[in-house]
Amino acid sequence: MLHVNENYSKIKPTYLFAEIAHRVSAHQAANPEAKIIRLGIGDVTEPLAPAVIEAMHKAVDDEAGKGAFYGYGPEQGYAFLREKIAKVDFQDRGIDISADEILVSDGAKCDCGNIQELFAQDVKIAVGDPVYPVYVDTNVMTGRGYSLLTCDAANGFVPGPEGCDADVVYLCYPNNPTGAVATLEQLQAWVDWANAKKSLILFDAAYEAFIRTPGIPHSIFECRGAKTCAIEFRSYSKTAGFTGIRCGYTVVPKELVAYAADGSEVNLKAMWTRRQTTKFNGASYITQRGAEAIYSPEGQAQTKATIDFYLENARLVREALSKLGYTVTGGVDSPYIWVDVKGDSWDFFDKLLKEANVVTTPGAGFGKAGEGYIRISAFNSRENVLEAIERIGKVL
Amino acid sequence: MLHVNENYSKIKPTYLFAEIAHRVSAHQAANPEAKIIRLGIGDVTEPLAPAVIEAMHKAVDDEAGKGAFYGYGPEQGYAFLREKIAKVDFQDRGIDISADEILVSDGAKCDCGNIQELFAQDVKIAVGDPVYPVYVDTNVMTGRGYSLLTCDAANGFVPGPEGCDADVVYLCYPNNPTGAVATLEQLQAWVDWANAKKSLILFDAAYEAFIRTPGIPHSIFECRGAKTCAIEFRSYSKTAGFTGIRCGYTVVPKELVAYAADGSEVNLKAMWTRRQTTKFNGASYITQRGAEAIYSPEGQAQTKATIDFYLENARLVREALSKLGYTVTGGVDSPYIWVDVKGDSWDFFDKLLKEANVVTTPGAGFGKAGEGYIRISAFNSRENVLEAIERIGKVL
Repeated sequence: MLHVNENYSKIKPTYLFAEIAHRVSAHQAANPEAKIIRLGIGDVTEPLAPAVIEAMHKAVDDEAGKGAFYGYGPEQGYAFLREKIAKVDFQDRGIDISADEILVSDGAKCDCGNIQELFAQDVKIAVGDPVYPVYVDTNVMTGRGYSLLTCDAANGFVPGPEGCDADVVYLCYPNNPTGAVATLEQLQAWVDWANAKKSLILFDAAYEAFIRTPGIPHSIFECRGAKTCAIEFRSYSKTAGFTGIRCGYTVVPKELVAYAADGSEVNLKAMWTRRQTTKFNGASYITQRGAEAIYSPEGQAQTKATIDFYLENARLVREALSKLGYTVTGGVDSPYIWVDVKGDSWDFFDKLLKEANVVTTPGAGFGKAGEGYIRISAFNSRENVLEAIERIGKVL
Repeated sequence: MLHVNENYSKIKPTYLFAEIAHRVSAHQAANPEAKIIRLGIGDVTEPLAPAVIEAMHKAVDDEAGKGAFYGYGPEQGYAFLREKIAKVDFQDRGIDISADEILVSDGAKCDCGNIQELFAQDVKIAVGDPVYPVYVDTNVMTGRGYSLLTCDAANGFVPGPEGCDADVVYLCYPNNPTGAVATLEQLQAWVDWANAKKSLILFDAAYEAFIRTPGIPHSIFECRGAKTCAIEFRSYSKTAGFTGIRCGYTVVPKELVAYAADGSEVNLKAMWTRRQTTKFNGASYITQRGAEAIYSPEGQAQTKATIDFYLENARLVREALSKLGYTVTGGVDSPYIWVDVKGDSWDFFDKLLKEANVVTTPGAGFGKAGEGYIRISAFNSRENVLEAIERIGKVL
């Protein structure tokens, strides 16, 4: 008789966004004429950069036999992409990361979810509250518990390491869902703590391309000593509109180690490489050629322009909610606006859905400390954002 | 102090194909003029079908804003693809599988590797010997042991269930690496065994498109009762040359259950859906449009023609080795030819590499029972296959 992994029964059977989709569908069914504007799930709406499109057409032609045919690629990603990542995302910004410390994948969600396979069963995990559910669920699915680092107005939504006794801490800045950013000093405190404790920081930098304020770190590796205590996840989903194209990467420094039960050092890059070569077969060649094109001068300018567009959306939403008397975080250096709704998250979500036909995300869906907030996403057309603001203004 | 998952140290640090790549590189470096022909790793060489290329160009244009923009898709895959799979791969062949039992992914390797997450830690696993290493390594990485089902000349490389006490058995037909196929009666015996024992069959049908002999089953679901005891993996890698494009799917019947510790039934499709929605974000939209085109009349004819081409390569290799006095399996209904080399696998591999400049795969790399064999792959141009045959003939 085959027995199942019973830890799966410990997680909620419905994923947050599935519950939102269910409520939106029900509302639409009851009101077929309603023109619903979606500022909920963080999916992009603008077309891909022309440089990316051109590169992907060329890659499709390669697979038609018009160029070199590319079959199985390296599980860690093609050198043509890894070298550009190392140069543009790190070395050009004065950060010492090389191409062989980059492992390309089909997205940051997969990497954030799979990384915990490298750890012993009984390691202590800490995550923010509110939090991106993937960090929690993937640990619960293996039977691990976790502790929470409260992110609230009192700490500016950036908790410090004081009193944290975790072996692994997940940090995400610019933050999903709060939109908060961390200063270099705040991240340095975490790095110093991790090196002292021989703990590991899993740094999710999926939203770094939205940072415009000088001095705000784009990478954990801007901190002194981070290469001995941190892994970083990057995504092209929001950076370049790749939510449907699927590409991201993980940075695992060569010198990063954890420990066997006997205290001997174990290299984490070797472990992650083994994980990926055994269970993964590389991101699509066409996708990787598209990602490469982000690093051309045209690609850089075009993707920056699209992010500027979303940031202007974010500014409009942030200012509108502020004028309505709400306290807001994020919306600067981030596509997310985190609104203190002075009441119940799901009630507020339902009010905006039913009265304004606007979809947001209830903060309570991201954890206990998210109760009393909603997250508004800036990913939509200017026209829809302006109309959503107008409708929200009328019902609040 | 962060402790690692020590099970990673129980698997060999070098993956089989990495060792082969190392030996080939060393030989090429020592003999820069040598024109090496690769019949080792099972990667395709022929261009993608024109119907697939056309569909992917159109999909790239969608992402440029010329059609509907596709961002995050369903983690289980788009309905446009799942419905065609259900119809063409199953219903048109009289097999009762519906679209909501299909979960599309970025490849069968990932699905074969990840499926074991659903099982309790102490389940008993059985795999063939020789075997595709992913089945073994992904279980060892979680701390599980496994038992071996010897596949040898005595049983025609198709072991039966007699005496097997596993909770989960991995079966792959047409087989990698031996090229052997299983009859409907042989698979039915496994299905009857699994239903009686409440065990699960993980059926890897990655090579089903190479079956030409009438009566040989393409799917485990051709067997009576398989929907209560089997999961099937399919791949577009060999079917349609998608090794660099990344797409496959897994069939989990709605009625398939396993058991909680208290003996209650747990639905496996719900568990796999939860796994995929939590740790995966869907295959590339462009890739899925390419896969959809395989199911058009043009796509079906074009992909069949490419497989016919590889099958003719396989026939040529099979007949040449037979004429040289070797006993061979496979090469019919399969792209792989399994040769009894009457000696050491790696010695024979080295002889063909060094004397004929032909790369094969040593059978010992697939397990103890593979010792004494090599696997030859039919994936190459006709010109290269003919030259490889000529060179092999000269050195043997």
